[in-house]
Amino acid sequence: MTSILKLTRSFGVASFITVGFSMPAYAAVTEETAFVFNTFSFLVHGFLVMLMAAGFAMLESGLVRKKNTAAICLKNMALYSIAGIMFYAIGYNLMYTDVPAGGWIGSFSLFYNTSQAEIDLLAATTAEKVTPEIVKAANGAGYSVMSDWFFQMVFVATAASIVSGTVAERIKVWPFLIFVVVLTGFIYPIQASWVWGAGWLDEMGFSDFAGSTLVHSTGGWAALTGAIILGARKGKYAKDGSVQPIPGANLPLATLGTFILWFGWFGFNGGSQLALGSAADAAAIAIVYVNTNLAAAAGTIAAMIAAQVLYKKIDLTFALNGAIAGLVSITAGPDLQNHLLSCVIGAIGGVIVTITVPLLDKIKIDDVVGAISAHLFAGIWGTLAVGIFGSGSLVTQAIGIVSIGAFVVVTSAITWYLLKVTIGIRVDEEAEIIGLDKDELGMDAYPEFGQSTK
Amino acid sequence: MTSILKLTRSFGVASFITVGFSMPAYAAVTEETAFVFNTFSFLVHGFLVMLMAAGFAMLESGLVRKKNTAAICLKNMALYSIAGIMFYAIGYNLMYTDVPAGGWIGSFSLFYNTSQAEIDLLAATTAEKVTPEIVKAANGAGYSVMSDWFFQMVFVATAASIVSGTVAERIKVWPFLIFVVVLTGFIYPIQASWVWGAGWLDEMGFSDFAGSTLVHSTGGWAALTGAIILGARKGKYAKDGSVQPIPGANLPLATLGTFILWFGWFGFNGGSQLALGSAADAAAIAIVYVNTNLAAAAGTIAAMIAAQVLYKKIDLTFALNGAIAGLVSITAGPDLQNHLLSCVIGAIGGVIVTITVPLLDKIKIDDVVGAISAHLFAGIWGTLAVGIFGSGSLVTQAIGIVSIGAFVVVTSAITWYLLKVTIGIRVDEEAEIIGLDKDELGMDAYPEFGQSTK
Amino acid sequence: MTSILKLTRSFGVASFITVGFSMPAYAAVTEETAFVFNTFSFLVHGFLVMLMAAGFAMLESGLVRKKNTAAICLKNMALYSIAGIMFYAIGYNLMYTDVPAGGWIGSFSLFYNTSQAEIDLLAATTAEKVTPEIVKAANGAGYSVMSDWFFQMVFVATAASIVSGTVAERIKVWPFLIFVVVLTGFIYPIQASWVWGAGWLDEMGFSDFAGSTLVHSTGGWAALTGAIILGARKGKYAKDGSVQPIPGANLPLATLGTFILWFGWFGFNGGSQLALGSAADAAAIAIVYVNTNLAAAAGTIAAMIAAQVLYKKIDLTFALNGAIAGLVSITAGPDLQNHLLSCVIGAIGGVIVTITVPLLDKIKIDDVVGAISAHLFAGIWGTLAVGIFGSGSLVTQAIGIVSIGAFVVVTSAITWYLLKVTIGIRVDEEAEIIGLDKDELGMDAYPEFGQSTK
Repeated sequence: MTSILKLTRSFGVASFITVGFSMPAYAAVTEETAFVFNTFSFLVHGFLVMLMAAGFAMLESGLVRKKNTAAICLKNMALYSIAGIMFYAIGYNLMYTDVPAGGWIGSFSLFYNTSQAEIDLLAATTAEKVTPEIVKAANGAGYSVMSDWFFQMVFVATAASIVSGTVAERIKVWPFLIFVVVLTGFIYPIQASWVWGAGWLDEMGFSDFAGSTLVHSTGGWAALTGAIILGARKGKYAKDGSVQPIPGANLPLATLGTFILWFGWFGFNGGSQLALGSAADAAAIAIVYVNTNLAAAAGTIAAMIAAQVLYKKIDLTFALNGAIAGLVSITAGPDLQNHLLSCVIGAIGGVIVTITVPLLDKIKIDDVVGAISAHLFAGIWGTLAVGIFGSGSLVTQAIGIVSIGAFVVVTSAITWYLLKVTIGIRVDEEAEIIGLDKDELGMDAYPEFGQSTK
Repeated sequence: MTSILKLTRSFGVASFITVGFSMPAYAAVTEETAFVFNTFSFLVHGFLVMLMAAGFAMLESGLVRKKNTAAICLKNMALYSIAGIMFYAIGYNLMYTDVPAGGWIGSFSLFYNTSQAEIDLLAATTAEKVTPEIVKAANGAGYSVMSDWFFQMVFVATAASIVSGTVAERIKVWPFLIFVVVLTGFIYPIQASWVWGAGWLDEMGFSDFAGSTLVHSTGGWAALTGAIILGARKGKYAKDGSVQPIPGANLPLATLGTFILWFGWFGFNGGSQLALGSAADAAAIAIVYVNTNLAAAAGTIAAMIAAQVLYKKIDLTFALNGAIAGLVSITAGPDLQNHLLSCVIGAIGGVIVTITVPLLDKIKIDDVVGAISAHLFAGIWGTLAVGIFGSGSLVTQAIGIVSIGAFVVVTSAITWYLLKVTIGIRVDEEAEIIGLDKDELGMDAYPEFGQSTK
Repeated sequence: MTSILKLTRSFGVASFITVGFSMPAYAAVTEETAFVFNTFSFLVHGFLVMLMAAGFAMLESGLVRKKNTAAICLKNMALYSIAGIMFYAIGYNLMYTDVPAGGWIGSFSLFYNTSQAEIDLLAATTAEKVTPEIVKAANGAGYSVMSDWFFQMVFVATAASIVSGTVAERIKVWPFLIFVVVLTGFIYPIQASWVWGAGWLDEMGFSDFAGSTLVHSTGGWAALTGAIILGARKGKYAKDGSVQPIPGANLPLATLGTFILWFGWFGFNGGSQLALGSAADAAAIAIVYVNTNLAAAAGTIAAMIAAQVLYKKIDLTFALNGAIAGLVSITAGPDLQNHLLSCVIGAIGGVIVTITVPLLDKIKIDDVVGAISAHLFAGIWGTLAVGIFGSGSLVTQAIGIVSIGAFVVVTSAITWYLLKVTIGIRVDEEAEIIGLDKDELGMDAYPEFGQSTK
């Protein structure tokens, strides 16, 4: 009898009787309902992040010259494909499967598949023999394992997308794609296992909500290493030390790409709550959306104002990179309950990009789209900001930034270098002049839109 | 004992026992589950509306000339950012916080933050000390307050996007953005408080489901006022009274923009049900999606046929504006249960745009993208249609249209005028000839795609 | 008393008491919650598929010449509109309403509306007189009927989108749109009723999860028939038997279109689970997403490698069509639990497209965008693959492919032929030279981007 009483009390019979028909007022989300919510959150937020591949493709297509546009489109389509295959073949297991407590790498096993519990549930459903035990077993994970895989996979692709923009207009297609194989199959998953795989950095307390460091700085470090080893585009830095601007061919596409990235970022940050199956999770995700939007907005406006003040001009590309830098900056800690801080964090990101883009040019590091500033520098800033405004320790955040940076730089450099001395990574001078589209693809991205300049 | 009996009856034990494992057949959505659904609906439908900013950017990029394309991209990126910041800083509170019963304005307090109940829930979740009372308190609102903020914020941005298209190709960047500050921080929120903030027009029974008047006509009136005060583009209206067509530079982008707007409109109208936490809400949203799609489809086809009949040509831009006009027309009342009426309402919207675009040219109001026709005139029509086919009163609908129109026209006119006599709103003649991109931004949107004409 | 005991046991009091506040550990999704999930799945996945209309529009805009771009934009905007209206007016009923057991066509009744049970629920909600019986009646369908209509409608539009690409650059606008009326109002719904309407092919065991045959091959057969009856573009096949490549005008747009299609395909395949209201459904959808992505990725990479091996070049358009072919190939059976098989199926699809595009040129069938290879041939392969790797019978799959193919070819051929001998389907030679944009629309898609070539 006591148990019945507990049941009635817990279920809040009073309100139940009042309302008559509805469920008791504070009845929680059931476990199976939570499973569906969590899974659907991974899928919805995952497809948002997937579209970021299109965002990067358009951003980069808009910022390269006409003659290198088809090549950058191809690289973006291919890198997203490779990221998916590599993360399926090896990456997910390296990142998440059997990472030892405090460890630095997961399992070398091949492929990743649905859990047995889910297979049993699906079989039982087909056979119409579902029992509570079977559902309970599948619900144990809290979400469908493949929905989690899908969500994690699109993050890998983002890291690879960052690289393609920086090294555009002079890298050969196939060597670039081999680098993507290594980045998405090995470099990214190993460093990510340190935090999201519950490895040593996680144990230390390093905090990176959605990947300012794990995704954006990782992509940025790989891009920086590539830019240095590859060298600048022909004609970018004149012998007299002056910098030649090389304007992009299609700025509305770059604008579209940035809007798509912003759109996808709600998935990137919102989905990184990793759950939607309770009021707390839903409320947390809403806060993440708001902070994400405010930081991007503040980054855009700050970059515009900074460009006006510093360079006396209103500049579209700074505004675009300001938005991206704002987004990257908030990615390590978009769960702030004081939204004004998100504006501050994003605005500083926007200023960082405005200042560092010309600085990189001064030291002759040629980043075609500004990705090193927007993803690496803003990523470092965002990760530190968690130590300043959020729950993290500034020292631990710095340790994470440095150790992941060192790992990515070393492994990327080895990969780029091995590719350089074997098959070569750079097109020859003539190819660079006539453009990668004609040289490597034998086609023209815009065959009827006037003659190419430069 | 009676309470137990009630419990069993209300829970439908009969079917429960039969099914054995599943919940009783008519068990309602629990309150916490409803909270998650409602919140997720705001977020999902909100991100759809957010992408409309990209849709407007592409539509306008496609319909301006080559030489003004980077400027319109910048304006669109900046206006979406400003709308977000202003609505956070002041707009939301003016629109929703403490609007008196029958009142006409909310609170002048700064910033908007998560509710204390949600902060308590999140803290309890982190501390693993969640109690039913804490969840119940947070669930009281029915949805996460910041998810609602996010959804309302993207609507403000839409109103601003409408303006940028009309006044393109001759307005200066910074003055335009200052207008956006006023529109999104003050004009839009104040008039919206009259209805959605439960102010005096709501009390009177004015009905505007998702904002034919509150969003689209408001943007349209601000655009119309701006177009008049700014004047027409150089060369648009010849001295002999003839109208010079100024074709847009990139029609596929305009087409893409329209498709994105259509896509986003499912969020705009569907999310305006403001809830997803019951079968009734879900069914209502489905009806809204269907009516939204049918009205847009009918608007497209009607505009194509009208253009063929009236002007003897098949015209892409009329088809695009027909789709938008169909969408705007159904926005005031997309909850019609007779879907055929949606086709009728949308088709009339499509015809309105086809007829009024040339009419505006006759009175020398220069609307670069046709936004006044598609948003203002179709918005008026859609709002009246609720009085004809829906549940509203035609007189009340007219009162709402006129009073909001008067408010927006007066406040916009004052703002435009003050900008005009202080910092100036229009680029000088030479700048208009060489284009805003070169003059204001010092860049070229398509530097390699042939020489600009005109 | 026994009933109470059963209640407590079924509800898992043990875990309930332990957890104290949360629902019992294996409590299922309630019926109304399932209704909301199922409805929302149709809506979310439906809006993803809707965006595929934009994807096709961009893909085709990118692959036609400059002079035919506005026309292809108009056709795509119009065909999506027509598909929606026709499916509302007649198609849905032909496909789903009262299809006899083992039958081959549904009802000829006009229009499709919300169910009476849902109307009752909405009325009761407005009147605040909801009773369990009213909710239960509406919940009976398991989902909102109009959400299902919306999801099915966007599939019809996809079939029509496939046709427009193949027959581009020489077909007149209005005759093409009349063909779309017939295809979306009659041809598509009738053949689809055989399987998804539970007609004779479904009874036989034919299996097509999301429409490799029903949607993609149907569109492909209609396109093939159109291409043959219409003839090749002027200059495509020289008298000496050589094939003249006619490159597309805007490859980044084609790339964007392909990314959007990929994005939309998560809705296309994921939503075809037709339910989200249980852990089993959520897990199944997650598997579908993963297979969809892997097949597309494998198709992209396989097409790139095949082009490199066979034609000694890296080709962007083969990569794009490889992605689409991978997606089409997996569409008949994306529920495979062994994800490696999805890679295999998608890769074979990618190779098929690479081989068959030149083959079609050899027999002088002029397919502007490669849609026959990517949708028809890969669709046949994907449907057969279900018989090889999945749960289907190879013989039954072949019967389905042939019978639907025969039906679509015959009905399409009659329609194309009737249009040809009455109003004519092909623009005259001069119009083809100056382009459809100028001839039919009197406009230019890119008036400032250099002179058209060819």
